[in-house]
Amino acid sequence: MNNRMVFYILGKLVFSIGVIMALPLCAAIIFSESVLPFLIPLGICIAVGLLLSFKMPKNNQLSPRDGFLSVGLSWVVVSLFGCLPYIISGAIPNFVDAFFETVSGFSTTGATVITNVETQANSILLWRSLTQWLGGMGVLVFLLAILPRSSSKSSRFMHIMKAEVTGPTVDKLVSRIADTARVLYGIYIALTLVEFILLCFGEMTVFESLNHALTTASTGGFGVKNDSVASYSAYSQYVIAIFMLLFGINLNMFFLLITGHILRVFKNEELRLYLLVVALATIVISINIFALVGSVEGSFRAALFQTASIITTTGFVSADYEQWSSLSQLVILLLMFCGGCAGSTAGGMKVSRLLLLFKNGKRQVKYIQRPRSVISVKIDGKTVDHDTIRGTTSYIIMLIAIFVVSAICVIAAEGCDIVTGLSSVVTCINNVGPALGELGPTDNFANLSAVTKLILCFDMLAGRLELFPILMLFSPSTWKKFA
Amino acid sequence: MNNRMVFYILGKLVFSIGVIMALPLCAAIIFSESVLPFLIPLGICIAVGLLLSFKMPKNNQLSPRDGFLSVGLSWVVVSLFGCLPYIISGAIPNFVDAFFETVSGFSTTGATVITNVETQANSILLWRSLTQWLGGMGVLVFLLAILPRSSSKSSRFMHIMKAEVTGPTVDKLVSRIADTARVLYGIYIALTLVEFILLCFGEMTVFESLNHALTTASTGGFGVKNDSVASYSAYSQYVIAIFMLLFGINLNMFFLLITGHILRVFKNEELRLYLLVVALATIVISINIFALVGSVEGSFRAALFQTASIITTTGFVSADYEQWSSLSQLVILLLMFCGGCAGSTAGGMKVSRLLLLFKNGKRQVKYIQRPRSVISVKIDGKTVDHDTIRGTTSYIIMLIAIFVVSAICVIAAEGCDIVTGLSSVVTCINNVGPALGELGPTDNFANLSAVTKLILCFDMLAGRLELFPILMLFSPSTWKKFA
Repeated sequence: MNNRMVFYILGKLVFSIGVIMALPLCAAIIFSESVLPFLIPLGICIAVGLLLSFKMPKNNQLSPRDGFLSVGLSWVVVSLFGCLPYIISGAIPNFVDAFFETVSGFSTTGATVITNVETQANSILLWRSLTQWLGGMGVLVFLLAILPRSSSKSSRFMHIMKAEVTGPTVDKLVSRIADTARVLYGIYIALTLVEFILLCFGEMTVFESLNHALTTASTGGFGVKNDSVASYSAYSQYVIAIFMLLFGINLNMFFLLITGHILRVFKNEELRLYLLVVALATIVISINIFALVGSVEGSFRAALFQTASIITTTGFVSADYEQWSSLSQLVILLLMFCGGCAGSTAGGMKVSRLLLLFKNGKRQVKYIQRPRSVISVKIDGKTVDHDTIRGTTSYIIMLIAIFVVSAICVIAAEGCDIVTGLSSVVTCINNVGPALGELGPTDNFANLSAVTKLILCFDMLAGRLELFPILMLFSPSTWKKFA
Repeated sequence: MNNRMVFYILGKLVFSIGVIMALPLCAAIIFSESVLPFLIPLGICIAVGLLLSFKMPKNNQLSPRDGFLSVGLSWVVVSLFGCLPYIISGAIPNFVDAFFETVSGFSTTGATVITNVETQANSILLWRSLTQWLGGMGVLVFLLAILPRSSSKSSRFMHIMKAEVTGPTVDKLVSRIADTARVLYGIYIALTLVEFILLCFGEMTVFESLNHALTTASTGGFGVKNDSVASYSAYSQYVIAIFMLLFGINLNMFFLLITGHILRVFKNEELRLYLLVVALATIVISINIFALVGSVEGSFRAALFQTASIITTTGFVSADYEQWSSLSQLVILLLMFCGGCAGSTAGGMKVSRLLLLFKNGKRQVKYIQRPRSVISVKIDGKTVDHDTIRGTTSYIIMLIAIFVVSAICVIAAEGCDIVTGLSSVVTCINNVGPALGELGPTDNFANLSAVTKLILCFDMLAGRLELFPILMLFSPSTWKKFA
């Protein structure tokens, strides 16, 4: 237990958020918009941040509990500070709504309460996209990446990486955790830039390209048009679709590519399964919607775009998939749960977990027949250790439990139909964005009650942090010895 | 591997099924109905049975694989022979339909393809109810109970009990497996008789009372009226509701009661949670439907009856719950997954598994904070061993996987809406009976395509046998050394 260190980390984080607010502040100046919505929170964040992180505690060790607690608290705290620009600017005057929008941003969900984004100030839209970009790789991983080398010496931040980076296990790419964080952010920034440049070649303005690059990279899905990306050209849609798929891949794969381990990338079981699922879903939906769309290219593009958007849990919409048949809709619902690869910015359960569960199930069928035999579960030729399997099965079951309880609460609170209720929770807990029914791709979350919005906020954060850092905040044992 | 012994068991079972067919044969004689639909299959079953089980193999050991394989094959085989009366009598001339009805019977699901049960011959209705009664406790447990003492000496039948009796673990009530089977069937018969007598006191005829007692005991839910039990008196509905709840309790509890261990019954965590869930669901639904029903007693009775019917996966219907609000419908959908207690005749996941998963989840949250600590999962004061936890988590995940794949296939094959598709699989895999949407409490399964019916047959058997005996039939490793 090292609560001082937890506060120190929170302070550093709030300070950084303040500094980052300088970016939309610049945008406000460039577009001659009001600067107060960013100037005031910037001041508050820097003041609170300095106050909390004035001096690093002498004992700077972090136990696993401290690491997970830091992450859980950090995400709540950044969402509280991050909603100030919305409230001050009057873009979203209501606190719960602004908090929902911010949580939706940082968790890269992309569900919005803004009914008309096209009338919003550019600086507000940029801040919205920035929250997603920061949330994509993780706010504390960002902090690790920018901390001076001297203060990130030890491997004590491993638990923070574990809690914030997605997937059942975390690989250290290089020997030091902080360097791993820097490598990850380097790849992340580079890919974002490439997409930004490619989008600029199309019909999008520089500002639009920047926003879409930021929200594609984080697989977040906030757009700057009311119809998401439906009105953009085929070129822009293909660029976004391909980059969504790229950002759904484990960033480590890009590191392996750069360092010349091409074979290891091709042999990666998770990546192969991910591409297989994308291909299958695209084919099934293409065929299924062909009669509706009418052209081969059109149905392929709509199917590819929507598959990429949903499996990576981005949530961009190029076509109103609620018009599609129930088979296509079911495929979309299942892709929401599937999610991208571990170690990517995508949400959902992650392909590697599905792979692990499938292999574990096969093992169990064999085990029941021959209880004394020893059969191990292998991925990429390596035996998966017992703790990872147990962590994964617990994760899935907790996810379903939270899903069920949330859905009951939402349906009880809203009195909506079952498809709307279930899919709104599915979309939030998997950080996708649009749902089905009354919260479909053409609707938004503005009309929900405050209770429902707070439940969905919990789901979004729990989904993004893969449950345990958020569940810990509700476990009495976490606070038992809090002093 | 002892395939001869597997065939021997199958032979004995088919022979017994033939003998049991004498009961509806008697009914046919009493009600002066055609005797051929039972006489012919009776002859076939006895001939095939004698042929297969002519001589007990010298090696009468059963490995775990043999035990599970016997169970998996047995259920397919009895369903094949059991559908003969429907086909021969012309009640259900189509083979797939007759097979569906028989699987629905033995698996105690209660989904039916007969559009008008009131015009069916009494002997056919009795056979239908009998399949459920036999399936409730398990067809091979029945065989164990009637085998002569000399041939059931060893504990080699433990694996059969494990595969057929529901729940994560099996208790041996008495030292010998065959005696345990006899005790279980004794309690089962006694409770069925009590309900039969109580129902006779009401307005039901003796024949109706017998049928309802048989299908309540097995939590199966085949009725003899087109509107299930909606037109019966409040007295009959209360009797059935209470007996459904009783049959949803672990039969071991009745054994403990008889042998004077009353305190152990009261302290049983699963039983307490089961009663808590029933009470909560009844209260929520009562309040929720009060405006619709109009009277306190009426809404309480409808809520209690439907809760009891769904949580025990019986599937009797006293009110068209599709008229209820989406909250009540969602509660019903969740109760389908919940199911009754382990060791009861009810389907679903079983309350003890939910309890285990919840405790395991809590353990995992603690474990993440303190990875080196040893925290065990305890139920009824006893530590649950690691294998049981792993078996339970694997079971749940396989259940969900089968559910998802089946739902995709059903929706693709039928082109129905998502609620109909999902709920038809939910109701079959949990052995409930009625679904929602187009397959609601007032509809039936007759209009589905043959492919969908076969998928649902698989789901019903997989659900009743808690997956692994049926999954084994599809695992290449089961058949690798088959000679």
